[in-house]
Amino acid sequence: MQLLKERIIKDGFVGEGNILKVDSFLNHQIDVELLSEIGKEFFKLFKKQKIDKILTIEASGIAIGSFVAKEFGVPLVFAKKTESRNLDKETFESKVFSYTKSKEYIIRVSKKYLKEDENVLIIDDFLAMGKAALGLIDIVKQSNSNLSGVGIVIEKGFQPGGKKLRELGINLKSLAVIDSLDGEVKFR
Amino acid sequence: MQLLKERIIKDGFVGEGNILKVDSFLNHQIDVELLSEIGKEFFKLFKKQKIDKILTIEASGIAIGSFVAKEFGVPLVFAKKTESRNLDKETFESKVFSYTKSKEYIIRVSKKYLKEDENVLIIDDFLAMGKAALGLIDIVKQSNSNLSGVGIVIEKGFQPGGKKLRELGINLKSLAVIDSLDGEVKFR
Repeated sequence: MQLLKERIIKDGFVGEGNILKVDSFLNHQIDVELLSEIGKEFFKLFKKQKIDKILTIEASGIAIGSFVAKEFGVPLVFAKKTESRNLDKETFESKVFSYTKSKEYIIRVSKKYLKEDENVLIIDDFLAMGKAALGLIDIVKQSNSNLSGVGIVIEKGFQPGGKKLRELGINLKSLAVIDSLDGEVKFR
Repeated sequence: MQLLKERIIKDGFVGEGNILKVDSFLNHQIDVELLSEIGKEFFKLFKKQKIDKILTIEASGIAIGSFVAKEFGVPLVFAKKTESRNLDKETFESKVFSYTKSKEYIIRVSKKYLKEDENVLIIDDFLAMGKAALGLIDIVKQSNSNLSGVGIVIEKGFQPGGKKLRELGINLKSLAVIDSLDGEVKFR
């Protein structure tokens, strides 16, 4: 997606530890006009599939998922990372290791919101090691719903997540794949 | 907001400990069509003020804030509840006690995304004790930006948050104020 790549070049920067920082427009401050275009782009990429629900993970996935759900006219469900008195007791759960936060956490989705035979599109901001995506895929499997695909805004092509998901036969679409962050951002 | 009140009556329910559960459409599964209408309603309520930025807090505030930001054509910033390697070192911080999660946490906003003389509208899903809203207001003050108002989807009128904010002279607008949850939902 050209608009996104231009924006990454313009406003993204490579911080300590070769982390791509896009928090001026994607995951802390959010450019909702860009996200609205991202929603339209994912709609174009997945509109041939039947989609009943968008599934994402808090927190950065929520804004993106909202605009994708708006395009498809379906509900958004977001997996929770923290326990809360408000969450149902009956949940699908999966363990996810976060390299950004250096810890393992449990993601949860209430059993009420993923039903057998629903067609689910997973949306997230980043794909790197693939742990969050695999956790969401695990939850889709537990629910016996159908995985229609995985849509990622920025895939770090030099990390194994994308390869892993493609080898599993998953319909993965990434709007920008970055092949290297050494000094400058290089897209595939 | 009539549409919202009808939806609370239809799909909300009062769970253990007199907690209003709206996670089928507002804070776990999200009805983006409703949220889009909520965005338009907040725009109507605050359009006379100059708004440069929407400020909310992860996680449930993000979807709502996204649609409000879209209406105003301004960026959304969400305060983070967890430390992350991705977050800037220079942040505004405030301590917030969560009654839902029975713990205190620190909310953080990068100093880059709230600037002096910006006009900020705070948006959140619930107002009960007012702790999260007061934390966000504290961050707005630290940044020397101007607080244009606070927009809340559901205010629990039987808890002191709303009163506290109004006594502070804050321009608070709640789309639904609930006065009682005993047995059934009673709106103000």
